[in-house]
Amino acid sequence: MSPIEFWFDFSSGYAFFAAQKIDDLAARVNRPVLWRPYMLGTAYKVTGARGLSATPLKRDYARLDWARIARAQGLDFRLPADHPRVALAATRAFYWIEHESPKRAIPFAKRVFSGYFTEDLDTASPEAIAALAPEFGLSTEALLAGIADPALKARVRQIGESAVADGVFGSPFFIVDDEPFFGWDRMAMMEDWIRCGGW
Amino acid sequence: MSPIEFWFDFSSGYAFFAAQKIDDLAARVNRPVLWRPYMLGTAYKVTGARGLSATPLKRDYARLDWARIARAQGLDFRLPADHPRVALAATRAFYWIEHESPKRAIPFAKRVFSGYFTEDLDTASPEAIAALAPEFGLSTEALLAGIADPALKARVRQIGESAVADGVFGSPFFIVDDEPFFGWDRMAMMEDWIRCGGW
Repeated sequence: MSPIEFWFDFSSGYAFFAAQKIDDLAARVNRPVLWRPYMLGTAYKVTGARGLSATPLKRDYARLDWARIARAQGLDFRLPADHPRVALAATRAFYWIEHESPKRAIPFAKRVFSGYFTEDLDTASPEAIAALAPEFGLSTEALLAGIADPALKARVRQIGESAVADGVFGSPFFIVDDEPFFGWDRMAMMEDWIRCGGW
Repeated sequence: MSPIEFWFDFSSGYAFFAAQKIDDLAARVNRPVLWRPYMLGTAYKVTGARGLSATPLKRDYARLDWARIARAQGLDFRLPADHPRVALAATRAFYWIEHESPKRAIPFAKRVFSGYFTEDLDTASPEAIAALAPEFGLSTEALLAGIADPALKARVRQIGESAVADGVFGSPFFIVDDEPFFGWDRMAMMEDWIRCGGW
């Protein structure tokens, strides 16, 4: 079965909530999940949109809504004071790990999410991200060198630009069997869609 | 019990879908609904956002998503060729009717939604909107005069500006017991919230 593509920005609150439940959803419909971090800024260049936290009214609403969702789901959730950080180091690290040690990529992504949204992890800092390497049996030095590699950087940029060219514009954003679903609040509909084979 | 405030723009596809189910939702939680059309442009002036149909990528996604929701719910749904129209005439008419004959305001709003999204009703045209008056036992001439009245125009503008000042920025947008809920896809959460008395 083709995978559920799960596109997200590591600084997206709604993506954090999606990450908490995508595994269970995928298991129910017997699909693998292809985790695909990218930089939302790549999409904003095309849509002209801005991030929630840079948008009057939406900024305050999003913070209220995230806190409300977290309480409903019993999740720890604390925004860094300087949210949103530009999680480019974390995004590059994900793809380096995926290439070097594929099975560790998704656990690493989950670690980044929980680090950022509960422990103030600096997802923009190569050093802070590389310091996570030993938790995954990897070398801090190798990860630091990997995310500085020009070829890796180019590949990460290309993955994001290609996604946006395919219509990805938000976070979380899912594609399954060529059908796009935007938002944490479309996950139930996506599950129905997969189960029904579309409608 | 305090009402569910239902803020919407008559040209909003997601508001059309919300309008199909807000009555049933409100009945289940025993709340009245206060229908409040406004011009989304009033919010865009503050947020800097643009309408879905003016936003690359989101435009195409929204059309796909609306059609998908309509099919799932067995609803007729056809966008006017020049969507989105600026539904100022329809919005003014709603508030004139609400003042003159309160019980007819919600049926009128539903008629505008179905007209726009299934029959190409020109919601921007005072004449096209006023022509609906006889369906509600009202005079076409009186409605046409009413929506041209400077005091009514000022009141409609003030209602929208006041809503945006209170944090309303989208369509549909709900407020109940001072708690805001943005989007068609937050209706289930809102229902839970009312039932629980918040969390």
